[in-house]
Amino acid sequence: MKRKKLRSDIAWSSAEKIVVRGLDLVGLIGNVSLGDFAFLELKGRLPTPHESAVFNAISITLVEHGMTPSAIAARLTYLGAPEALQGAVAAGLLGLGDRFGGPAEEAARMLQLALEDAGDSPDLPAVARQIVARQRALKRPVPGLGHPVHRPVDPRTPRLFEVAAANGFSGRYVKLIELVSAEASRAFGRPLPVNATGAIGAIASELDLPWQVCRGLAVMARAIGLVAHLQEETVEPLASEIWARVEEEASEHLREGGESPQ
Amino acid sequence: MKRKKLRSDIAWSSAEKIVVRGLDLVGLIGNVSLGDFAFLELKGRLPTPHESAVFNAISITLVEHGMTPSAIAARLTYLGAPEALQGAVAAGLLGLGDRFGGPAEEAARMLQLALEDAGDSPDLPAVARQIVARQRALKRPVPGLGHPVHRPVDPRTPRLFEVAAANGFSGRYVKLIELVSAEASRAFGRPLPVNATGAIGAIASELDLPWQVCRGLAVMARAIGLVAHLQEETVEPLASEIWARVEEEASEHLREGGESPQ
Amino acid sequence: MKRKKLRSDIAWSSAEKIVVRGLDLVGLIGNVSLGDFAFLELKGRLPTPHESAVFNAISITLVEHGMTPSAIAARLTYLGAPEALQGAVAAGLLGLGDRFGGPAEEAARMLQLALEDAGDSPDLPAVARQIVARQRALKRPVPGLGHPVHRPVDPRTPRLFEVAAANGFSGRYVKLIELVSAEASRAFGRPLPVNATGAIGAIASELDLPWQVCRGLAVMARAIGLVAHLQEETVEPLASEIWARVEEEASEHLREGGESPQ
Amino acid sequence: MKRKKLRSDIAWSSAEKIVVRGLDLVGLIGNVSLGDFAFLELKGRLPTPHESAVFNAISITLVEHGMTPSAIAARLTYLGAPEALQGAVAAGLLGLGDRFGGPAEEAARMLQLALEDAGDSPDLPAVARQIVARQRALKRPVPGLGHPVHRPVDPRTPRLFEVAAANGFSGRYVKLIELVSAEASRAFGRPLPVNATGAIGAIASELDLPWQVCRGLAVMARAIGLVAHLQEETVEPLASEIWARVEEEASEHLREGGESPQ
Repeated sequence: MKRKKLRSDIAWSSAEKIVVRGLDLVGLIGNVSLGDFAFLELKGRLPTPHESAVFNAISITLVEHGMTPSAIAARLTYLGAPEALQGAVAAGLLGLGDRFGGPAEEAARMLQLALEDAGDSPDLPAVARQIVARQRALKRPVPGLGHPVHRPVDPRTPRLFEVAAANGFSGRYVKLIELVSAEASRAFGRPLPVNATGAIGAIASELDLPWQVCRGLAVMARAIGLVAHLQEETVEPLASEIWARVEEEASEHLREGGESPQ
Repeated sequence: MKRKKLRSDIAWSSAEKIVVRGLDLVGLIGNVSLGDFAFLELKGRLPTPHESAVFNAISITLVEHGMTPSAIAARLTYLGAPEALQGAVAAGLLGLGDRFGGPAEEAARMLQLALEDAGDSPDLPAVARQIVARQRALKRPVPGLGHPVHRPVDPRTPRLFEVAAANGFSGRYVKLIELVSAEASRAFGRPLPVNATGAIGAIASELDLPWQVCRGLAVMARAIGLVAHLQEETVEPLASEIWARVEEEASEHLREGGESPQ
Repeated sequence: MKRKKLRSDIAWSSAEKIVVRGLDLVGLIGNVSLGDFAFLELKGRLPTPHESAVFNAISITLVEHGMTPSAIAARLTYLGAPEALQGAVAAGLLGLGDRFGGPAEEAARMLQLALEDAGDSPDLPAVARQIVARQRALKRPVPGLGHPVHRPVDPRTPRLFEVAAANGFSGRYVKLIELVSAEASRAFGRPLPVNATGAIGAIASELDLPWQVCRGLAVMARAIGLVAHLQEETVEPLASEIWARVEEEASEHLREGGESPQ
Repeated sequence: MKRKKLRSDIAWSSAEKIVVRGLDLVGLIGNVSLGDFAFLELKGRLPTPHESAVFNAISITLVEHGMTPSAIAARLTYLGAPEALQGAVAAGLLGLGDRFGGPAEEAARMLQLALEDAGDSPDLPAVARQIVARQRALKRPVPGLGHPVHRPVDPRTPRLFEVAAANGFSGRYVKLIELVSAEASRAFGRPLPVNATGAIGAIASELDLPWQVCRGLAVMARAIGLVAHLQEETVEPLASEIWARVEEEASEHLREGGESPQ
């Protein structure tokens, strides 16, 4: 009962050759950078210099966020399973969900769906008003706006938009999220500037990356950062100390009061 | 009972600034590529142009290996948990263990430990003979040599060595693995050329990356490839068909004979 | 800046003692079964015999589903990382998401939220009608009803309800899902009987387990099944063969047509 | 190129039936506990009452270890990805590696390999001496002995051995590990009593479970404990506070000194 032919267009190899997205890997080695190779993987062709600049800009922004829950979880996992660094990286990536990896996806989704519905010559200010009105009706925040730490302005945003503009990728998605920010700030009565994930969601949309892939951009970039955290853990370990402190404090009340279990 | 101060030197941020490895992230955006940023994460400084060429060359070699067990596992996981792409990537990475992610680590470890022990002016041919003799005594294959598919020569190896040499990174680690290959071919009586993971282990050692990080290079690079496989799975799905076929065939004998469980 | 005391009530230990949920572990060893211990973990007390019967009944139903995508992914992961069985189990569990692990959670959530809103003496048929009407308006299937394979009736459902009734746990959640099934069958014009996950969602609700935990029941039970699959993989391996077949078929068209990459 | 028929003997199902290890699942629901079902999965048959007592005893011992690195990693992961509880459990399990999940496997491996080599009527004291001598020669600790917290005696060990003896499972594996403990204490000149993982490794061997599965026992049991930790995290959250504290302390020195990145 074969209902469907299995088919993948990403890569194949023979004894003499490895071909990725139609290009001979050996010809790429030494000529193509990691970021451009990632573009090739996702888009099926190498980037133009402008695309490369923009794609690398959003990718590096996602690599490192310091001592995040992801990084701590990866370090704790490595403590228990030093034989399997891949497991520690995987544990760290598992935290890039709706709360930490999802926002860029959500922002891209919001923009892409809105402009899909809006036809060829969309009235961007009207689309922005609809987006904000819908989020308000759902009592949900607008994805891609505001930041708990980087206030009043997320310093990455103007730089990301600058790089996008300098390379010809400041199109209607970037304009739309800026209009959404202005409208949301007005509607909610407080400054809601575009944050880095909002900027990345918009610029990824300019690069014609489907919104479903945007969480993937965060995941692939963060894998790099997590390897760096695990490398540091081998020379400046934190996990054991975190464990000791948390264990002691969290069960203090049980220890004191709990000497006589039934 | 604080026994140890927690300390990380990777990154920090304030309201106005994000600093990674001592550099202002905003100044890097638009100026630094993903591969160079990965170098910065791991080494604490940006690469020279020569280092960049070599580091990007070994990194892109590790991104894509076609329809591996990792890629299939990631696709099967995505079928069950489409809400959590991070989980599907993590599942794929978990397969980069001793068999598929470990070889580059093992090759780098073999070379680095051998040259650590060998002092400042090592007799490389003697070191190579010792390495091969030790593996033979342990009845284990020599890491980084031979390939089940890419025969007689792994096409990536000469190109990787060429890029390393062109950038001044063809030092004693590269020489040593070539000597190990010659000695092993002699000792085992069949051609055992350096494969891509052997070349990567040697070149990573030339870049002074500790062997423990080499599995991490494979993990971070493969995360990119896995995102591409999941993107393809959304438009050209395989997982459901693989499941149906495997399920049917694997339980055929039970179905036929097993109509009357106790 | 300590904003919050860390506190956990699950377990603590000293040199002489390990205490879980207030009970001395040593006193439990040999006296308490794994299922009852799981109940203790989740509810903070040991089950009554009736609770034990019902909790074990729903738990064992979730352990094994044959050659699922989860089981295949776990086996493929083990092939690459035989040093880390924990990673292969983790990879398998990662597939228990919205599609395969979520339904019991979704059914429990539907029932618990509906009865939370409905007050002390709910009009169950009216609640059932509301539930079905809401799902129809959202154009979504009703969780916990129907099954692609087990038709016309999921054989586990009547048995689960029988065990629940025999132990005094056939209360309003069970009644409600039966009413939802009847109403949905009428509204959609085809038989939509309660499936096993619907029954489990209802019975878990009778046991007063929060709906958030229901996906966890599936996860903890399936971990057992995945270990069994990995044990079988060591003596009757499938992963390598699946890989070979998928790889060959999926890249056939590239191999044939792709001999001359640029 | 089908080289091998895919075959699994664990389970199959049809429209009317689900069969696990040759038994009709519906007949098991309500009659078999979770622990006994786990035994069925691993051994292919239901346990005798004696086997059930012993298997459940070792299983519950592995469920909960308080606020371990695993539990903390799971909670941190859940913070970032609340949509995917399966990912948080998986992250927790990934820490059950060589350091925390491996010891029971290692102890079982040591005992099983030693008695495999030793023939039908082994001289157990001689085998114990060989084991200790080999570990000393390798400068490695003897698996299953000693404990950093539970001193002088791990309170679980005598109870586990008592349950094993009461059920007829105090055979040569249990005797061997006790002899190994006596010999190691003598050879290393300090008390090295059998710890809980040593006892579990020995008793699992008495149950004829292959050593490869012993890490799996820890993994499946701990999945239960991790679900309980995640349930507690929803009502008594720790992750966010741990993150804030670690982040602040770890980057303090950078913040203070690092105001002027290049």
